[in-house]
Order: sequence, then structure tokens, then C-alpha cells
Amino acid sequence: MDMQKTEARLSALRARMRATGADLVALGPGPHMQWLVGFVPHADERPCLLLVGPEREAFLMPALNAVGSRQHTDIRFFEWSDEAGPAAALSAALEHLGTTDATRVVVDESMRASFALLVLDTLRGAAHAFTEETSGALRQLKDADEQAEIRRNAGIGDRAMQALQAAARPGMTERALAAIARSVFEAGGAAPLFTIVGSGPNGAAPHHQTGARPLAVGDAVVVDIGARQGSYSSDITRMLAVERPPEGYPEVHGIVDTAVKAALAATRPGVPAKSVDAAARNRIAEAGYGDYFVHRTGHGLGLEGHEPPYLTATSETVLEAGMVFSIEPGIYLPGRFGIRLEEIVILHDHGPEILSGLSRDLFVTQGG
Amino acid sequence: MDMQKTEARLSALRARMRATGADLVALGPGPHMQWLVGFVPHADERPCLLLVGPEREAFLMPALNAVGSRQHTDIRFFEWSDEAGPAAALSAALEHLGTTDATRVVVDESMRASFALLVLDTLRGAAHAFTEETSGALRQLKDADEQAEIRRNAGIGDRAMQALQAAARPGMTERALAAIARSVFEAGGAAPLFTIVGSGPNGAAPHHQTGARPLAVGDAVVVDIGARQGSYSSDITRMLAVERPPEGYPEVHGIVDTAVKAALAATRPGVPAKSVDAAARNRIAEAGYGDYFVHRTGHGLGLEGHEPPYLTATSETVLEAGMVFSIEPGIYLPGRFGIRLEEIVILHDHGPEILSGLSRDLFVTQGG
Repeated sequence: MDMQKTEARLSALRARMRATGADLVALGPGPHMQWLVGFVPHADERPCLLLVGPEREAFLMPALNAVGSRQHTDIRFFEWSDEAGPAAALSAALEHLGTTDATRVVVDESMRASFALLVLDTLRGAAHAFTEETSGALRQLKDADEQAEIRRNAGIGDRAMQALQAAARPGMTERALAAIARSVFEAGGAAPLFTIVGSGPNGAAPHHQTGARPLAVGDAVVVDIGARQGSYSSDITRMLAVERPPEGYPEVHGIVDTAVKAALAATRPGVPAKSVDAAARNRIAEAGYGDYFVHRTGHGLGLEGHEPPYLTATSETVLEAGMVFSIEPGIYLPGRFGIRLEEIVILHDHGPEILSGLSRDLFVTQGG
Repeated sequence: MDMQKTEARLSALRARMRATGADLVALGPGPHMQWLVGFVPHADERPCLLLVGPEREAFLMPALNAVGSRQHTDIRFFEWSDEAGPAAALSAALEHLGTTDATRVVVDESMRASFALLVLDTLRGAAHAFTEETSGALRQLKDADEQAEIRRNAGIGDRAMQALQAAARPGMTERALAAIARSVFEAGGAAPLFTIVGSGPNGAAPHHQTGARPLAVGDAVVVDIGARQGSYSSDITRMLAVERPPEGYPEVHGIVDTAVKAALAATRPGVPAKSVDAAARNRIAEAGYGDYFVHRTGHGLGLEGHEPPYLTATSETVLEAGMVFSIEPGIYLPGRFGIRLEEIVILHDHGPEILSGLSRDLFVTQGG
């Protein structure tokens, strides 16, 4: 990442720090750090932190990663060795930042617990918050480069889904079907992140662990796949049926699709995320399936596969142009089947842009 | 995992809790949970915790993962929905365990910061520790099944290393070489975890990010690779030279190998981990390269690639039969090359069993 982008993002972060009264932001080797400085040092159990104070920033850096990391940044390192441990280096870094008596600290919610507690145990008595009002808030708004990268990833996701649909046959295991999608991702230069294939009754667990169950004629199959090319990723869910859908399926599919459409129609800048959730949830509840829609309507997509904004029944987050998120209502009928349909959208001033070019209709495999 | 093993491990954990005065252990979806109950629910940003109290245990479980997780365990779930959030379910779980006023809490150091702080913010005023005296201590000792699985993984690691050595040629990029190892891992049913290829001066960064640098004649190349088959993984480092080693290389390789031998000789039950580190470090220091051995001598290997015991200059951990760890001294000469040689050993009563069958000698590729 160029220095200018880092400077601009640091400056935006400090504005959020001032607005929220935060003295210090501590980020681990993960998506927040990636967003801010464009790279992530080798991550293991050794505490590695990007510390942002009101005027200066510093890295707490394991000595053995210093040479490799120095290629990517000019930010000052406070190095520590395996022998000495990180305490003295952290104190020196806090001294350098002028934050040895910080009282409000933002810690990266996604980093290792040991990293967060190292900071909080050092700054005894400091209150803590996660990043939702600082870097988390800023990361929600994707610039044109980020949008282009997410759009490109969605294209690879579509191709993986189509290949999987074309390959599905009775007797194939969930795992074999997932492997088809993974191979297409890999051929497209994307690293598979998840390939959920939930066949028949397994589809009733929204996060089913793809397994050895063979597809049977009459199965409905939830396929939820995603992969990362570059720094961003894809995420799409479609339904397929093996030769024919199970009894009672088409009506429920129609209800879920109506919920997707209602959520899309409610999606525009200025509305709270909860009204998009309500739009989907009300349709499903009106149809009598309210108890079977067991999760939120969507989540943001960016450097993390799940990140703000979250589209829940209670989220007051106001949607803005530049946000990228999923709309993915579902109905899960224990012992029978599950149905989820998921679109990723980029929100523009004029409304949501749907990234997938694939129909949400049930894909039915050909017999024989 | 069978219920009996879970029962035995829970009972061993409670003995450690009593011995260390811990009222509650909170584990995230990761290696500690895997070790205790033999599975890990789908992991995302939704707090999911295995809570172990003095007499009972409970899961804090995101509602959408309940059906999938129920296939793997009979432990009581306290479910929470995206709408409600986890607070009430966590309180109910703590009530069930009789730990609403726990004063000493063990939190899983490897879980998300948000999970640990959810527990600690709920149990205001409770002191916290990580797992090093509870589940971390227990996990250090591998039973016969675990040892067999780690031994099998080491065999796949050797094959991947040999294939990579056989394929190395001038002009190949670090990434292309790493891909050879990954393909052998995958063919053996192992998921690649890391494939560090540090060529020429890049080898001087112990955790070099494998990149686009093409191998040149006269390069020394650090190759550090590992993959997971089943629940355990492999980890091996060997050195190769492209047609011939660089100037001054053989002497330094000899020093590192002597350090490995000295560490192996010092490795036996009853000695503190720091004396193994000292054995390696002293050899390197005596040879005049003390400033260039910038990391600890080794780390445990198990459900995590890095876990206790850590073989550092200050570790008082007493080695015991059943521990599995790396011995991997190195010398890193900035601008020139790095050398690391790594063995994984299982410690027995009679001494260390080296898992790799590969020589630690420099592998020199054939010209032409």
C-alpha cells in the first residue's frame, strides 16, 4: 500500500479517536492492521501490535520478524526477544507514544486474547472498547479500489458455484462437491475460505460442517462458498436440488426469495441496518416461518468475511454508500432441509448493486 | 472423540483447577476446546465458549450453530440469537455452573480478544490467567494416539521436503518452490499450514514471507514447511543450496548443526527447557555468532503448531516424557543468508526420538 493511503487512514483514525475520546488504539496482525498499513507481519503467539497514539504510532515487534516487516513499513519498531519477553518493549512504545497513562484504549476484537490482555494489564485501570467506533467504522466504507477488488472476487465465486452445480450428481459426497468449488477458486487464483455443502437434513444447520454424506435424489442442498483473491473475498449462497426438490420445497424457496427481494428494496443510504433485517424477517414471519429464520439477515464483507455492518434486528448502524454487505435470509426445517439465498451488495447512492450474476432460482441437476 | 476421553480430560482439568485455585475455565473454538471435547463448532465473531466450572460444564452457543454442534456433544448449551446477543445466555450459563462470582478465571489465550473480554467484563473484578497451568499444561503430554498421529504427519513432511529439494532449479521463484511442497502435502491428505522459502538474503528473515524472488546459483535457501493431517501437524526446516553454497556457508551450517546436536544431547526428562536452549545457544555464542541467533531454540507441537513447552533462555518448564517439541537453532546474517535446521522430537524416558528421517546436511541441487 502506498504511504499516502496509510497517512490518510491514520489521519481518519485519529479523527475518530478524538471524537470518541480514545487515547490509544492497539491492533493485532489482522484485518485492521492490514487496512491501516497494507501488510501484516508473520502472526503467531508472540505479541505483535500496531499502537496508534494521538500523534505517533509504533509497532511492538517480535525481534525475529523485524527484518521481514521492515520491508513494508517505516513505522518505528519496539523489538523484543524471546528471551526478554514483550513487557519492556511495550512500555518503551507507550512512552514513545505518550500514552503510558492512557485511560481509554481501543483493542482489536479479532486479535488473540493474550495480545489484548497484555495491553490492558499494562495500562491498569484503563477502560476498553473494541474498534466499532474507530477503525471498524472507517473500514465499513470501501473506496473504489476496494469495491473493484470485491467485484472481481464475486466473479470467481459465481464461476465456482456454476462448476459445482454442473458437477452435482446423486452419490457424490458433500466433500467431493465442495472440492469442485475449491478447485475452481484455486484455478482463479483465489484461496478457498469456506465451502459449506449441507445436503438434505444437513442443510438445516446453517453452518453445517461439510461431510461424507452422499447426495440422494430429492435432496435440497445449501451451498455457501467463498474465497479470497488479493485482500478481499467472495461469499455466495445458492440452492440446488438433486434431480428434484423434496416435498414442500418450492413454496419455502419462494418465501426466502421474497425476503431477499424485500431486504434489497429496503436497502438504501440513510436507513438503519435493522430495517433491512426487519424487511426480510417480516416476510418470513408473515408466511409462518419466523421461528425457522435463526440468524441475522447479513454481515459486512471486506478484509474480513464477517465484519460491520451487521444487519441484525437491533442494529442502529445507518447504512451509507460505500458499504458492502450480504443479504442472506434463510429458513431451516430440522430433519427436512434448509434454504438460504445470499447476495453480496455494494450500496450506492441510488441503491444496492448486486455483485453476483447468478439467478437465485433453485438449480435442479439433470438425471441420468 | 469418545466420551471416556472427554471425561478423563475434564477430570484432569478440574484437578489442575483445584491445584491452581481457578474457579472457571473459558475456552474458545480452538485447540483447547478440540483437546477437551474432540470438536470445534463453526468459529466466527459470534462468542462461542466452553465453560468449565468446578462441577459442571456448559457451552455458550450461537443459536445458528446449535444443531450442527449437537451432533458432537451432550454438554448443555446456553444458546443466544443474533437478535438478543450473548449477555443473558452467558449469565445463565455461569448460574448453571455456580460461578457467577468467580474470582479466578482462566481464559484461552488463543481465542478472540472479544470472547475473553466478554467473560472478564461479566465477572467484574475477577483475576485472570491463561491456560499455562491448566489445559495448556495437560496438553503438553501427548498420549500414544497423539504421538502416532504426529509421527505420521512427520512422514508426510519429509516427503514434501524431498520433493521440493528434487524440484529446485535456478530461476524458479520461492513461491513456485513452495507450491511443490504444498502439492505433496495435499496429495498426502494434509492441509498446508506454512511453506516458508527464504532464498539468498531473504533467508536472513526467520519468518520471511515467501515471494517472487527467483532462485539464483549460489543461493542458500531456508525451507520451513508444515501441514496438518487429522488434528496434528508437521514442521521441518532444512537447507538447500542452488548448485553451490554461498561463500562462507559451510562453516556456519556446521555450527548450527552442532547446536542442534548439543540441544538433542541436553534433552531428557527432568531438565528445565532453558537448559536445552542454553546448550544450543552456547555453541553458537562460542563460535562468535551469538548475536545472530535471534529466536528461542524450540516450541511444542500438538493441536497448535506453536504451543507449550517453549524452549527459551528463561523457561523453567521441566521436560517430561510425552512432550513433543522442535529443536531449531539458527544463524541469520543480514544481507547474506540464513541457516536454520529443525527437528521435531518426542521425548521418551530414554531421550528424544527424532521424527524426521532426513539428513540435516545441506542439500545441493544438481546443475544443468
